[in-house]
Amino acid sequence: MIKRLIDEIIKKEAPIVAGLDPTLRMIPESIKKKAFEEKGETLEGAAAAVWEFNRAIVDKIYDLVPAVKPQIAMYEQFGIPGLEAYKKTVDYCHEKGLIVIGDVKRGDIGSTSEAYATAHLGKIRIGDSEVPVFDEDFATVNPYLGTDGVKPFADVCKANDKGIFVLVKTSNPSSGEFQDRKIDARPLYEWVAEKVKEWGKDSIEGDYSNVGAVVGATYPEQGERLRRLMPETFILVPGYGAQGASGKDLKGFFDKNRLGAIINSSRGIIAAYQKAPYSDKFSQEEFADASRQAVLDMKKDINDNV
Amino acid sequence: MIKRLIDEIIKKEAPIVAGLDPTLRMIPESIKKKAFEEKGETLEGAAAAVWEFNRAIVDKIYDLVPAVKPQIAMYEQFGIPGLEAYKKTVDYCHEKGLIVIGDVKRGDIGSTSEAYATAHLGKIRIGDSEVPVFDEDFATVNPYLGTDGVKPFADVCKANDKGIFVLVKTSNPSSGEFQDRKIDARPLYEWVAEKVKEWGKDSIEGDYSNVGAVVGATYPEQGERLRRLMPETFILVPGYGAQGASGKDLKGFFDKNRLGAIINSSRGIIAAYQKAPYSDKFSQEEFADASRQAVLDMKKDINDNV
Repeated sequence: MIKRLIDEIIKKEAPIVAGLDPTLRMIPESIKKKAFEEKGETLEGAAAAVWEFNRAIVDKIYDLVPAVKPQIAMYEQFGIPGLEAYKKTVDYCHEKGLIVIGDVKRGDIGSTSEAYATAHLGKIRIGDSEVPVFDEDFATVNPYLGTDGVKPFADVCKANDKGIFVLVKTSNPSSGEFQDRKIDARPLYEWVAEKVKEWGKDSIEGDYSNVGAVVGATYPEQGERLRRLMPETFILVPGYGAQGASGKDLKGFFDKNRLGAIINSSRGIIAAYQKAPYSDKFSQEEFADASRQAVLDMKKDINDNV
Repeated sequence: MIKRLIDEIIKKEAPIVAGLDPTLRMIPESIKKKAFEEKGETLEGAAAAVWEFNRAIVDKIYDLVPAVKPQIAMYEQFGIPGLEAYKKTVDYCHEKGLIVIGDVKRGDIGSTSEAYATAHLGKIRIGDSEVPVFDEDFATVNPYLGTDGVKPFADVCKANDKGIFVLVKTSNPSSGEFQDRKIDARPLYEWVAEKVKEWGKDSIEGDYSNVGAVVGATYPEQGERLRRLMPETFILVPGYGAQGASGKDLKGFFDKNRLGAIINSSRGIIAAYQKAPYSDKFSQEEFADASRQAVLDMKKDINDNV
């Protein structure tokens, strides 16, 4: 699957993933009004608004980006109807030819991690049948429980041509509380990085492994170092835009072929119409056009700086 | 909420939580046959079997245990129908007076962690309405992302009288890969424990905080040390039974009043009928009676040893 992601990045000349992390505050009033009139101020009503919002944005950007990254928390907060909207979004993006990175940050042990891996990347055996479940192409995974937690994901990936991105150095301000602490003179995140290499060494496809890493754009020096430390590990990079990083912070995350990383922007794309400079040019009704323009600007920012 | 949990433990004389982590292999053939005949070998069929299995077990044990801990991965693997069975299980356990610990091991940053916290412990605002979502009483949380990841959970808990258990030292064999690594002469899990105390210090209710910790029964020495290190932190202890720990390993997790910890058993209770000594005495059809006996035996084992 990592090879397909890289091929799509090359084809679309955009190492960009659009984070589909909708909140009700981002969704234009007209969409919410219609959804709430039809289904009430209920989980169903909220989920209908989320789905309508996503669909409109995907329709305007699917030709520009190789991948989307729905953040499942934003759907889980609307319960079962929200998760139905998540699944509809995954399926719709697949119809549009997009690769889907499920940002689920799951992680448990043994058979439980296997269940999560099956839920998101595999097929579940029921009687004599094998049934796909949420069926994303990649998932994000939390490494705190060690090999017992991650290996089941890597195994399911191998069996189903899928991939994962393991949290190494996250983009948030407090990520250093544990991740930066020194163990034998090296920060914890580097020890995690060493394990990511080990977990991925049997899953190399072309230049990169199907076991990738998450490294925040907000930590460019660490990104550069991790790029060198993990030469066969593809990096998913959150933190661009709303979290503060821009194109000039990103060079170090890429390899000499300007590959090896994909940059996520969520609010910066899907809620572009709410912030300058887009809020001056696009009305609420034109939210999806604003998203398209934000992708084009992000593409230019990255391609000019990397 | 921690006070209610402690009151129920005292009332039922059982510091025991039953892990509702069903797999299809555990479910008796007759239940699966009926479910698959009605709904096919589909996610719906599997979810129907899971729900029927859970209901029968809860009916036989609700008077013995204060709490249940459904592992959401085991439901998520059956997609939307599986998550519907999860929600039905949560609601049914509430009807039976049980406290529900959602073993979700979620963890993300900022607004995303807030969304997970809302999904499992809070109420979501939709228009002018506030709607509960999965509505468990406690949830488990992964600390790898630091304060940004955990604080939103603690805040939602305070606003809704709920609680969390943060992963400190997990029960699995490879938990030491990162958690045991020494930072300034102390293992990482102790640094996490220090943060758990800090995150919980404003949520003390009686003797304990609504921000608790997960420490595996398979590491009794570490459990004893963590009990002393975190005197106001309630400990959720997995790893009893199928994972290898027994009553004699547990003393150190408890305080001088024989409180301060709750021990989880999953397979050991819900799949008791499949293993000795219960498999000799109980038929497949009597699976729920076997679960009841396993709870009674576990209660004796703990109360004799603690």
